[in-house]
Order: sequence, then structure tokens, then C-alpha cells
Amino acid sequence: MNQMEVEALKIGVIGYSGSINKEPVKPLENICEELGKEIAKRGHTLVSGGRDGIMELVSKSAKEAGGLVIGILPGLENGNDHLTFGVKTDMDFAMRSILMMYNVDVVISIGGKAGTALELFAAYGHSIPIFLLRGTGGWTDRITKVLLEGKYLDERKSVELKSVWSVEEFMEEIEKMEDKI
Amino acid sequence: MNQMEVEALKIGVIGYSGSINKEPVKPLENICEELGKEIAKRGHTLVSGGRDGIMELVSKSAKEAGGLVIGILPGLENGNDHLTFGVKTDMDFAMRSILMMYNVDVVISIGGKAGTALELFAAYGHSIPIFLLRGTGGWTDRITKVLLEGKYLDERKSVELKSVWSVEEFMEEIEKMEDKI
Amino acid sequence: MNQMEVEALKIGVIGYSGSINKEPVKPLENICEELGKEIAKRGHTLVSGGRDGIMELVSKSAKEAGGLVIGILPGLENGNDHLTFGVKTDMDFAMRSILMMYNVDVVISIGGKAGTALELFAAYGHSIPIFLLRGTGGWTDRITKVLLEGKYLDERKSVELKSVWSVEEFMEEIEKMEDKI
Amino acid sequence: MNQMEVEALKIGVIGYSGSINKEPVKPLENICEELGKEIAKRGHTLVSGGRDGIMELVSKSAKEAGGLVIGILPGLENGNDHLTFGVKTDMDFAMRSILMMYNVDVVISIGGKAGTALELFAAYGHSIPIFLLRGTGGWTDRITKVLLEGKYLDERKSVELKSVWSVEEFMEEIEKMEDKI
Repeated sequence: MNQMEVEALKIGVIGYSGSINKEPVKPLENICEELGKEIAKRGHTLVSGGRDGIMELVSKSAKEAGGLVIGILPGLENGNDHLTFGVKTDMDFAMRSILMMYNVDVVISIGGKAGTALELFAAYGHSIPIFLLRGTGGWTDRITKVLLEGKYLDERKSVELKSVWSVEEFMEEIEKMEDKI
Repeated sequence: MNQMEVEALKIGVIGYSGSINKEPVKPLENICEELGKEIAKRGHTLVSGGRDGIMELVSKSAKEAGGLVIGILPGLENGNDHLTFGVKTDMDFAMRSILMMYNVDVVISIGGKAGTALELFAAYGHSIPIFLLRGTGGWTDRITKVLLEGKYLDERKSVELKSVWSVEEFMEEIEKMEDKI
Repeated sequence: MNQMEVEALKIGVIGYSGSINKEPVKPLENICEELGKEIAKRGHTLVSGGRDGIMELVSKSAKEAGGLVIGILPGLENGNDHLTFGVKTDMDFAMRSILMMYNVDVVISIGGKAGTALELFAAYGHSIPIFLLRGTGGWTDRITKVLLEGKYLDERKSVELKSVWSVEEFMEEIEKMEDKI
Repeated sequence: MNQMEVEALKIGVIGYSGSINKEPVKPLENICEELGKEIAKRGHTLVSGGRDGIMELVSKSAKEAGGLVIGILPGLENGNDHLTFGVKTDMDFAMRSILMMYNVDVVISIGGKAGTALELFAAYGHSIPIFLLRGTGGWTDRITKVLLEGKYLDERKSVELKSVWSVEEFMEEIEKMEDKI
């Protein structure tokens, strides 16, 4: 690996699972494609739950752009077809989501049901910076209604949840983080 | 064990951690004491995270009333002084919370910060009936602002989150559950 | 709990699984019955994998003698009928064996196939004193052929594996341990 | 990835940890270098515990030969410098060894202390073909003294432990496996 890659970030992507050809995932196809491509192009590593939905779309475009794509999988399943390596955990969905948090530097959330909300709280518990890709629906938007001071999940103020409104804005925020490291 | 005990439930109690002599736990002392006592008196098993705060108060009164008190502990710590058995998991707080959900039939939530919210989502993911002891603050009250149809954590409608306003009301709901089993 | 119980040990019992009415478990029935009874009588807690075979026989007699009987269970199964509390781990057999080691002060091994051997190495890795109940067959006897200096599993000499030839001898060794604590 | 890589195997390497410049690892440097190189050259993925000793030597040469190198790490540590991706598990050494077994198609063992022996039993429990690189010392050689019928770890005969005497012989055995898949 060259020096640039060593300084790269492990970016965790969480959000809707389910068929990539149906609601609520289908309308997010373009945004996921852009996200995966940008992560790969800049030399970051994509880490996700390795399954379908958002995870599959982002993995696909990151892989096609030559990126390193890791999936932290529940049970002993194989994951989607776009993983450089899928880590089988023999854990249930929630427990493998916690394990995923040991392996990311930052999280971006896209839509999402209860499993995604659990991941937001897991990331917060490990003080991992969280970005909410707003306008994508589900818990990514819903959680903003109950944040303390508009940005925390509780009084501990472990880490901020920041709203971003585009992949471009997210990548800019990420670059600011790299400057600090 | 007699027949009554065999039919007993494993009741998971989640909520605020922290010193039992300080806010926000101290004002909840009476309600916790009542809860632990009722759980034990009726032959149910108390399962909690086994640490301080709400967990300690409920464990103490359940133990004094002769109940079986189990703590699912993070790391390799010993837990509070009122456990019949503390299960050391060598896991972080969140992961041990997931493991706790494999070991409860129902969950009651009292106040709580981000860790409690994660437990609500974990219980929901495993379709474990959840009771919110309203008026106790924290995520127990806050979550009600963002429930779908006033009772679900997402469109899957895995299981209802029901509000109860007293320990008495909770115990009545529990008895209804037993009738169905 | 009274003072005696507080000083009690958590005794891990490992060994053959399988039907209690067949080889190789059946011939060990008396010895298991004696072991469970002695553990309970002296106020110790029995911790096992909570399933059939040796685990079931020892659990049964410990429970009948009024002891606290804990099972650390694989998957989400219920375990045998003699557990005060069965901890469901949703883990495979081996991983739950490691978790069991966080919850015992000492281990006694009775016969056993590959799973028992793995538990011997797991106990050793956590420096938990190991007693081999000799003459019970399987890995309990087999491992003695390859011990370093007749008592260690490797050059680290983490902890000794001691041979005992009866339940009585084991209980005497346990009492010596308690004196040191 | 091209078609060849898709059919590639995930090869688990277990064995001595410790400094690569000291006994007992140092004398195994050449053999580890050859092993890593061959694994990478043939398009297989190297999976190891990701730390020092044997793991570091094989990872280094596999990485230099352009291979995919995965480390399943204990705790939250970073692992050696030669990993394509190090999976942090927040687990103790033994538990992460079990998790590693969900992620390999075959295991090769080189020397090794008690942790390696535990991994042999874990692989056997999951019916993963095991190759003992003979002459490398430790449990890799020692286990052969107590195998049933010279090749099994217990009466279940889950999977064979085969002795190989060189990296070349191992790679030949691996190719036979691929033919069968």
C-alpha cells in the first residue's frame, strides 16, 4: 500500500436493507452509486453489513471503482457479490452491527429501519462521528426530531450527529476529519 | 422448582445506569423497589445488565424478596451485590445488551440514556414485548415522540411498545401475557 | 446470601455430551451424581454447558441437593431440565465454551471428545486451575500423554492440570484452594 | 476480480506468535516466506490472527506478492503492518480464533503453543480440513502423538488432520481440494 492508502479512512455505510429494485432502496440508487465511487476514488475503505439494499449498491460502485470493500456479515452467509472480503461472524444482525463499529472511523447513514437506528446508537456509544445523509428517509431523518441540542443522542454528548445533504458535502466533511488526524 | 416457577417469565429491566444516590436515578428509587419486589413475589426471574443505577435498585429489592436475580455483565466485572448470578461476557456494553435480549421474555424500560435506547431497538429486533414505564424520563419517554402509529419502531411492526404508568399496570399487563402462553 | 455462599466457588464441569442412558456417559452416572451433590452441599455454584451427557447428570444431582446450577448454552436452546438459569448465548458450541470460562473459578474434566479438549485449552488460556478426573476416558485421560513436565499445556506454564482419581480427592483439592483465597 | 480469484480458497494459517527475530519463530522464516508467496501467487486469500510470529511472516510475504491478506484480530488492536484489512473483534484470543474459523476453507498449522492447539480443535469442530506442517515443532507435531487412527481428534471423525512436510506438498494437497469443489 502506498502512503495515501495508509492515511485513508474506514467509512461505515449503514441504511436500508432489502431488494435494490424496490422501494425504499431503488430511489436511492444514484446517491449510493456516487457515494461508493467517491469512497473508492479517494482511497478510503468501505465497510458495511455486506448484504443487500444500500449496502449492495454502495459496495457495487466502490468495487467497480477499484476500492477495498469489506462486509461484516451476520450468520454464516456469503454477502453480496461486490465484497473484497466478507467477514462471517455467526452473529445475529444486531451483534454483528456492534462488531462493525470496531472497524470504522466514521459512519454515514442513509434511510434505514430499526436496525439502522440501532447502528446509530452503537456508533454513538463508541464515539464514532456520524453523518446523516438527509432527505433519504427512515431513521436517518427521523432521529433528528429527538436529538438533544439538535446533535446528541444523550446528555453524555459522546459525539455529534451531523446532517449532510449530499455526497459531495459528506466527502468535504471527511476531508476536514483527515486534516485533523 | 414448583410448577408456578416453571411458568414464570424472565423479565428484563433496562434504564439509567449511574450512582443510586444521584440524579437521575435517586428519584426513581421507590418505583424500582416496588418493581423488584413484585417481580420476585410473583415468581418471575429478574434479568438486567447487572450494574448500578436502575439495575442495582431493582436487583436489590428482588433479591430481598427472595427472587432469582441474573445480571448480564459487560467485560469481566463483578456486577452489583444483589445478583444470584452475574454472567461475565467479556463484551462491551452494547454487545452484552444484545446477549441479554436472548434471555428475556419481556422488557420494561425506565428512563435511560443512549445505551437504553439501543436496548429498545435490540428488543424490538428480537420481537420481545416492550413496556415503557412512562414519566421516568430519558429515552423511555423520548422514544414515544417518534413511534410509527404510536407504537412501532419501524414499518415491520415486529412488536409493540406499550406505555404503562405504574408498576401495578405493568404487572397486570404481564399477567395477561402469561394467560396467552 | 450468607457469608459461606459469598466465599463459594464457581465450579465448571466439562466432559462428554450425549444421551445419559448410553455409552460413554452411562457408566459415569454414579460419579457425576456424587460430584453434583458435593458441589451443592458445600455451597458452590455449578457452571456447565447446560446440555446433556455429563452436564445433565451433574446438574440434576446438584439441583436436587439445593444448589445453584447455571448452564452456558449454545444457540438459543433451553438446556436440560435442571438449571436454575440457562444463559442463551446464540453462539456455536466452541464460542460458548470460551464464554463459560469467564464464569468459573476452577474446572473439572470428565471424559470428553474434541469439544472438551477445546475447553481444556480455553481454561488454560485463562489460567483457570484444571482438574482431570482420571479414569473417565476421552480427552481427560488422553491429554496426560502430551503434557509438558507432566502438567502444562505449553511452555508458558499458565496453570497446572492436576490429576484427581475421585470426587472426594477433587473436593479436598478445592478446599485447599479456598484456604488460599 | 477475475474468475480464478472467485474460485480461490481462504487459507487459514495458525502457529507460533511472538517476535519474528527470536526462537521459536526465527528458524521458520524461510518456510513462512515461501508459504505466503505461494498462497498469494495462486490467487488464494490469506486469513490469520493478524498478529506477530508466524502470522506476521506469512502476511508479509503474501502482501508483497500481491495477495489479499486478512487478519482476525483480538481486542481492538491494529495487527501487523501487512494486512489488507485487519478485523477488530474486541474478543479475547480464543474467541477470535473461533471467529476466524468461520472465515477459512482450510487450515495449515506451523508449530504453536496452547492457542494453536485450541485453533486445531476449533477447526476440527467446524469440519475444516487441517494440514499439519510437520517438523515445525510445538502442537503441530505434538498433536500427532494422540490422534485417533493417526488422523482424528475424536470418535466423530469430523475431518482428517493430514501431515505435510513442505509448503510444496501443502500446495499440491490444496489443488486436489480445488478440483473437488
